[in-house]
Amino acid sequence: MDSPVVRVAVLGSTGSIGSQALDVIRNLPGRVKVVALAGGQNTVALARQVAEFRPRYAWASADSAELRDAIEHAGSSFVGMDEMALAPEVDVVLVATAGAAGLIPTLKALRAGRSVALANKEVLVMAGHLVRRAMVEGGGSLRPVDSEHSAIWQCLWGEEPSSIRRIILTASGGAFRDLDGPALAGVSPEQALNHPTWTMGKKITVDSASLMNKGMETIEAMWLFDVPIEKVEVLLHRESIVHSLVEFTDGSVKAQLGLPDMRLPIQCALTYPERGPIAFSPPLDLAASGSLHFGRPDLDRYPCLKLAMEAGRLGGTMPAVMAAADEVAVERFLGREVGFLDIPAIIESAMEYHSPVPEPSLDLVLAADNWARQAARSIQVTAAV
Amino acid sequence: MDSPVVRVAVLGSTGSIGSQALDVIRNLPGRVKVVALAGGQNTVALARQVAEFRPRYAWASADSAELRDAIEHAGSSFVGMDEMALAPEVDVVLVATAGAAGLIPTLKALRAGRSVALANKEVLVMAGHLVRRAMVEGGGSLRPVDSEHSAIWQCLWGEEPSSIRRIILTASGGAFRDLDGPALAGVSPEQALNHPTWTMGKKITVDSASLMNKGMETIEAMWLFDVPIEKVEVLLHRESIVHSLVEFTDGSVKAQLGLPDMRLPIQCALTYPERGPIAFSPPLDLAASGSLHFGRPDLDRYPCLKLAMEAGRLGGTMPAVMAAADEVAVERFLGREVGFLDIPAIIESAMEYHSPVPEPSLDLVLAADNWARQAARSIQVTAAV
Repeated sequence: MDSPVVRVAVLGSTGSIGSQALDVIRNLPGRVKVVALAGGQNTVALARQVAEFRPRYAWASADSAELRDAIEHAGSSFVGMDEMALAPEVDVVLVATAGAAGLIPTLKALRAGRSVALANKEVLVMAGHLVRRAMVEGGGSLRPVDSEHSAIWQCLWGEEPSSIRRIILTASGGAFRDLDGPALAGVSPEQALNHPTWTMGKKITVDSASLMNKGMETIEAMWLFDVPIEKVEVLLHRESIVHSLVEFTDGSVKAQLGLPDMRLPIQCALTYPERGPIAFSPPLDLAASGSLHFGRPDLDRYPCLKLAMEAGRLGGTMPAVMAAADEVAVERFLGREVGFLDIPAIIESAMEYHSPVPEPSLDLVLAADNWARQAARSIQVTAAV
Repeated sequence: MDSPVVRVAVLGSTGSIGSQALDVIRNLPGRVKVVALAGGQNTVALARQVAEFRPRYAWASADSAELRDAIEHAGSSFVGMDEMALAPEVDVVLVATAGAAGLIPTLKALRAGRSVALANKEVLVMAGHLVRRAMVEGGGSLRPVDSEHSAIWQCLWGEEPSSIRRIILTASGGAFRDLDGPALAGVSPEQALNHPTWTMGKKITVDSASLMNKGMETIEAMWLFDVPIEKVEVLLHRESIVHSLVEFTDGSVKAQLGLPDMRLPIQCALTYPERGPIAFSPPLDLAASGSLHFGRPDLDRYPCLKLAMEAGRLGGTMPAVMAAADEVAVERFLGREVGFLDIPAIIESAMEYHSPVPEPSLDLVLAADNWARQAARSIQVTAAV
């Protein structure tokens, strides 16, 4: 192996994507090295990771004696995520934090010309215009980690950006794809967390069931690949094997396929432009799969998808409002305070009360996010659980 | 449109691929220009093409007063295919001749550093090692035109050749995919010419029904993409929508899809590295397609596929013998002289009588081809029609 070692800062290392990234890195000794780890409230898990990887930098939003001990033993420095994103020893910043926390480190890293492997959806949904500006002005680059955007990214290698005719995001349809519309009102958080093809974090699993996840991905695709939202379409695909597709100006379509395993796109983002070894899932066997199914989503059945596409079209602060309202609505649903169909009702209500500001500054984005959280918390819904 | 005009020599312009290439070129005025046309026996069609495109050079293997008139009126020069392949006014040589006729022009063009859009299967099957040597020594490049190889080529844009783990060629299964083994013995040429998804020439349609076409594509893929034949697999796919796939070292799979229309890969080879407009088939609508099916081919049911893979493994002059014997066997089948299952029997018999010469010169390849034609003509088969 004569490739240089890739030095990675993992922001959000104790979350679902963060811990899978560490699985990937364990499997690439001498090729990828952890130089920074940042976690949230789970200081027990972070302490274990610090002891194992002995990163140069470590940070957590919570404090504990165990974590302090681990950091001291590992000889790590306790520095914040913004500093990690700018540290000269870091080649790739993996932003795998949830919610708005990844926003400032992403912008700082891109402005400093770094490569950011982006697993956080909210960053682009809330502030895609600021992210693109930071990339253009600072020379940084984005490597998508989400399986759908990684698929599109891979399909675009060697292609001219002007050759894109349509971006086609696939959606499994989530936990409730086989339920009738009316039955959705009474579903429980446990049911929503039972995703048919992917194992993921709670928030994103609920967002998959409502297709809000796909709606946010539509907005992300627009910013990642610099296309108008009208060029992004959603295609239902039950098996989650075709991760997404790109249609080019000449009608040729390219797709990326694989078994549903997030470690594959994570590895792809870390080892780019090289490809790593096959390590986790066995190779895809399409003959064994037998058949792949496709269909068109029914926007009436998936109001969250419709709301997200509408927010993307309106632009400005509206996507930030939508994303923040969704985060609160999902929390309220998981806390059994509201029903599943109240999620789009809460988001729609927050969006109705908001007049979007075009090309907002970061402060205005964060203010809109804050306003929407408060609004979404206080919105009364009729359908109790 | 500020791209330079691509100047094309179309060798085999009156055949199925040649005339579809002219359809493509008619649709790209100011972007692609015909500077040479070469045809075979159909001088009436060639005379019409010469009158329409007024190429600088024209040639046919047969002679007719009508053709001479057309050439004189168009102000074209009558020069052979080898000269066309080397003419300085030619940017891309489209080799769409059938059989061995395309071999020498291809080698000459590649040695002279030209781009060859290759639609002729036999060139690589017979003399893949000579083609690769001509490319390496002369600096020429190949652009595959076959839909399967075009798919693989497109999937490899922007990828390292060393990242290829497997090349997966899709096969529709041909006209007899739903017949029982024993029923194959009595099928007629008319039945064999009824391909379920593609409209093509006669020889290739029969080769599709026997899967010899796929066997030859396996050998071609080996030479086009410089991989051992063991890395090339065949996957049955009824709908001919996924044109082929590449699996990379990390397990990621890329596929190229489109409606079955040869004009798409032809256009791709002519406009490369740019993509042209969508012109012929409507865009692919996977939601309307509903589902795609995949399966493993049964080598016992498709002896021609097995024979081709064996010839590819043996190498040297063996693939040339196999291809020549197939050409004769298909002629005999179309002439109702032998049955459909006699095609593999004739090829196998010719291969059994041949001791392959490793790394053969062009003369030895042509001698093996000639020997195999005679052998295949004289082989007696038991199953009369």
